[in-house]
Amino acid sequence: MVYQSRGNIVLTVHHLRVSQSERIVWLCEELGLAYELKCYDRDPQTRAAPPEYKALHPLGAAPVITDGDMVLAETNAIIDYIIARHGGGRLSVAPDAANYPDYLYWLHYVNGTLQPSGSLPMMLNRAGVPEDGPFMQAMVQRRKRAVQAVENRLSRSPYLAGAEFTAADIVMGFSLTTVRYFSPLDLSAFPTILAYLVRISARPAYRAAMQKGDPDMALLLS
Amino acid sequence: MVYQSRGNIVLTVHHLRVSQSERIVWLCEELGLAYELKCYDRDPQTRAAPPEYKALHPLGAAPVITDGDMVLAETNAIIDYIIARHGGGRLSVAPDAANYPDYLYWLHYVNGTLQPSGSLPMMLNRAGVPEDGPFMQAMVQRRKRAVQAVENRLSRSPYLAGAEFTAADIVMGFSLTTVRYFSPLDLSAFPTILAYLVRISARPAYRAAMQKGDPDMALLLS
Repeated sequence: MVYQSRGNIVLTVHHLRVSQSERIVWLCEELGLAYELKCYDRDPQTRAAPPEYKALHPLGAAPVITDGDMVLAETNAIIDYIIARHGGGRLSVAPDAANYPDYLYWLHYVNGTLQPSGSLPMMLNRAGVPEDGPFMQAMVQRRKRAVQAVENRLSRSPYLAGAEFTAADIVMGFSLTTVRYFSPLDLSAFPTILAYLVRISARPAYRAAMQKGDPDMALLLS
Repeated sequence: MVYQSRGNIVLTVHHLRVSQSERIVWLCEELGLAYELKCYDRDPQTRAAPPEYKALHPLGAAPVITDGDMVLAETNAIIDYIIARHGGGRLSVAPDAANYPDYLYWLHYVNGTLQPSGSLPMMLNRAGVPEDGPFMQAMVQRRKRAVQAVENRLSRSPYLAGAEFTAADIVMGFSLTTVRYFSPLDLSAFPTILAYLVRISARPAYRAAMQKGDPDMALLLS
C-alpha cells in the first residue's frame, strides 16, 4: 500500500508493519510533512520482513527512508535527519536550552538501554535458555530496572525531555507498546508510564500514523 | 587517578577502565578540551564497575560525564552534547552538508547494529547456549555481516562519514578494538578495517587518550 500526503513529497517512509518503523511514520505526522508511505507486510509464517523490504538496505532492518537517491537506516539517524533537514528543528531541543542533556539522554536511552533489555530476553528465549534459570532471571530484573528508570523520570516530568513532547517520546512509545508483541512486559506496576501512554497515544498524529501504517494491529496501550 | 588538563575545566569524564568510555576520553583529546579525567578500575574478580562508578548514575553503565551539576550517560548522547556544547560542532557533519546522512548513519550504526551483534553472542555464551548450536551460529553469521558492512564502507571511503575523520570513527574504534576483549573477533578477513585501525589509532589524540585512560591495556589493533 502506498499512502501519499498532499503537497510536494519530501521523502518516502518504508514501513515494515508491526515494527519500529512506526516511529518514523508518527514523526512525519507530527511534523506535518508531505511524505510517501510504503507499507510492507511480514511473512505470515516466519514474521520476517519480505524480500522487497530487505532489498532496500544492505542489512535489511527497519526502519528505512529514501529521500531522492539517498537511503537511510538506523532509527536515531533517521530521526535526526528528518528533524534537521525537513522539520526545522521541531520536536528536538536546541543545544543552548537547559534541557538539552535530558533530550539527548532519553532519545538515546531507548535504543541504547531500554530496548536491548527487552530484546535480550527474547533472544535468550529463542536460543532455548530456560525461563526460570538464574541468567534469564537476572536479565528480567535488568529490564525491570530499565523500565523503572522511565517510571521515575515520568514521575518528575510530563514528557521525557521536560515540559514539552519531543522526538524522545516518539522513540519511547514503540518500546513500551508494540515491542510487547515480541517481548511481553507487564506494565501494571508502572502507573506513571501507563498514564503517559494514554497521553501520548491520544495525539492526533499518533492516531493518524497507526491508522495509516498498521490499521489492523490492536494497540498495546495498557 | 585524576588527570587534569590545563585551562578552565569544562567537564569531567568518568572513565571505567577497559570500557566504551575510552571513546569519550578520545573525543575530548581530539577536541583539545580542558577536561578532568577520573579513572575507575573494574573489580579484579568479577570485572564489574566499582560501587563508586555505579553511584554516578542510576543505571551504573559507562560512559558517564559530569558538567557542573549535570550528569549524563549514553554514548551518543554524550558525543552529541560535547560536540554541540563544547566542541563548536567540530568532528560532526552539518545538516546541510552532502554527507550528513552518512555521518548520522555510521554514528548510529555502531551502537545500534554492530555492537549488539557482538554483545549478543557474548551474552548467549554466558547463558550457556552451545557454541556450535544453530542459534549461536546464526548470531555469529549476523555479526560477520555487520562487520562486512563496515569493510564495504571503508573500501569506498577513508573514514566512515567520508573524506574526513569524525566522531563516527571514534565510536567505531572501540567496537573494533577493545570490545574484542569481551567478545573475540578475528579481523584477518577484513583487510580494509585493519588498515583503518592502523590509521585512526596513529592519531595523537587516540594515543594520548589511551595513555591517560588505560596505560596498562594492550591495544587490540590487529
